[in-house]
Amino acid sequence: MNNQWSVIGPKYRVLDCTIRDGGLINDHQFSLEFVRAVYNANVSAGIDYMEIGYKNSRNMFSVETNGCWKFCQEEDLRRAVGENPSKIKLSCMIDAAKSDWKTDVLPKQQSPLDMIRVAFYDYQIEEALQMIDDAFNKGYEVSANLMAVTTVEEKTLDSILERLCKSPVSVFVIVDSFGFISLAQMEYLTRKYVAYASSVQKEVGVHAHNNMQLAYANTLTAARLGATRLDATIGGLGRGAGNCPMELLAGSINPSNYDLRPIYHCLENHVFPLREKIEWGPYPEFNMTGQNNVHPRAAIAARKNPDTRDRYTSFYDNLKGQSKAKN
Amino acid sequence: MNNQWSVIGPKYRVLDCTIRDGGLINDHQFSLEFVRAVYNANVSAGIDYMEIGYKNSRNMFSVETNGCWKFCQEEDLRRAVGENPSKIKLSCMIDAAKSDWKTDVLPKQQSPLDMIRVAFYDYQIEEALQMIDDAFNKGYEVSANLMAVTTVEEKTLDSILERLCKSPVSVFVIVDSFGFISLAQMEYLTRKYVAYASSVQKEVGVHAHNNMQLAYANTLTAARLGATRLDATIGGLGRGAGNCPMELLAGSINPSNYDLRPIYHCLENHVFPLREKIEWGPYPEFNMTGQNNVHPRAAIAARKNPDTRDRYTSFYDNLKGQSKAKN
Repeated sequence: MNNQWSVIGPKYRVLDCTIRDGGLINDHQFSLEFVRAVYNANVSAGIDYMEIGYKNSRNMFSVETNGCWKFCQEEDLRRAVGENPSKIKLSCMIDAAKSDWKTDVLPKQQSPLDMIRVAFYDYQIEEALQMIDDAFNKGYEVSANLMAVTTVEEKTLDSILERLCKSPVSVFVIVDSFGFISLAQMEYLTRKYVAYASSVQKEVGVHAHNNMQLAYANTLTAARLGATRLDATIGGLGRGAGNCPMELLAGSINPSNYDLRPIYHCLENHVFPLREKIEWGPYPEFNMTGQNNVHPRAAIAARKNPDTRDRYTSFYDNLKGQSKAKN
Repeated sequence: MNNQWSVIGPKYRVLDCTIRDGGLINDHQFSLEFVRAVYNANVSAGIDYMEIGYKNSRNMFSVETNGCWKFCQEEDLRRAVGENPSKIKLSCMIDAAKSDWKTDVLPKQQSPLDMIRVAFYDYQIEEALQMIDDAFNKGYEVSANLMAVTTVEEKTLDSILERLCKSPVSVFVIVDSFGFISLAQMEYLTRKYVAYASSVQKEVGVHAHNNMQLAYANTLTAARLGATRLDATIGGLGRGAGNCPMELLAGSINPSNYDLRPIYHCLENHVFPLREKIEWGPYPEFNMTGQNNVHPRAAIAARKNPDTRDRYTSFYDNLKGQSKAKN
């Protein structure tokens, strides 16, 4: 149901990355049943894209301790979704310096995948450009996901965006790895990314984190300023503070296009029950790492230990101490 | 610590309503120790205002089942804060049709209170204007809090704002009782309220709810467009989905003015432990009532009963059924 405050437009595409980003909490140890449930929910809801995992290197990461969605071999993808007879497009992420992309990304004809998203830090731009070319030449739609953009210097960011403009990527994604981006900065970054992208008929995406309870708000903000590829996860499942919740996003971006019932059904029966074993959400420790623009790893560690979880004062003091020592 | 994306300006005032709004969950059954802890945290943090409760009618509401912060008699206020020797200003809310304001609001000289906030629905505007005059004549700063603004027709809203312009209130507050307001609507409402208020040298405030994880984002949005009186509660404590969390707001509105440590300390030692008995937060049931612009009472009821809590699919079906039946 649209209301007059919904964000409406034919160009928006919503991408579910529940398995890919959520897997960062549990080493991608999701059952086949769980992955199928998320896929079926997305298909029934009318979600546009689903990112089903990483193609990380089986030489660098243990195949014993990590679930198969960290590697996304085609045989595993097919066990979950067959040849993907639905309209949803399937995506997989490859990390610079952590994947054997030359061999592990198969030609598109041999894979149920439609899109490859290349994740990289600013200093990895050379490899990222090679990865983009490789995936494009193999027949995929390609997305460039520059991580931790809030730690990248302005000049470096401009230079990277210029180089991406000349590459065959279709999409640049604004990635708020540290959950630091405020509404004002999201406006600024979206305008910048859109200015570059629109000059060469590319699109802008957004991948927000919820450290300061701004994942949904930042995604809406970017969408209103021209970002058209919007990431979310069911229940906000994701490392640390989690992501933009799909049930909120699909309720306000072209809401007539999406059926929220399968999302809520999957949340109730599959995602929510995970809370017995893993946690995610904007706990105060994540507020603090977000506000200070640092990686949430200290917050994740504090919350894992019952002696330090919810000890906000000492966490605050430690963070301030580190910040002073750094300056 | 300011960063370049903070919202900075001499005019902003932050109001803590942890006791007043949080008390809607537990019939204001807060211990004296708890109220003092919140007061001390606010004073140490440099928060500008604290709303300590309601002056509701002792004839209409049971003094046995409700805590004293529902009535805020001056003797109870003094037990908590003495004569309030600090710089923080103290506020109390009075509800139209639920308070004996003529007798229960004492002349300011006889009270530690500085501000009276008048809460009313659109159809109660006549009584609200009388309450405003009364409180102003008794020496208080007065705020007009029109509740559930998302259910008020445009013409009615304009007429109410026009009448408030001619009254002695200092502040009009945008109150998102149902947690329905999206960023676009908050922009629209803020512009409207500010246009009225600024023409008569009054200020605009915002009181957001977190049903769609937008309380903080909407408060920031309003602030950037000229709202200067900003409500929050420690840990977001508040009925249903809760409120804008103070630890987030005071970290981004003139952050150099506020010390977050006492807030996190109070959150850890006083507010967080309440979770053993009461819950609040943007649970999916509140997402749904928020998205549908209805009062969260159905969501509150569903979450109180272990048989219906976290049964999102049936809650969704019920809400859709009611919505269809209505149309």
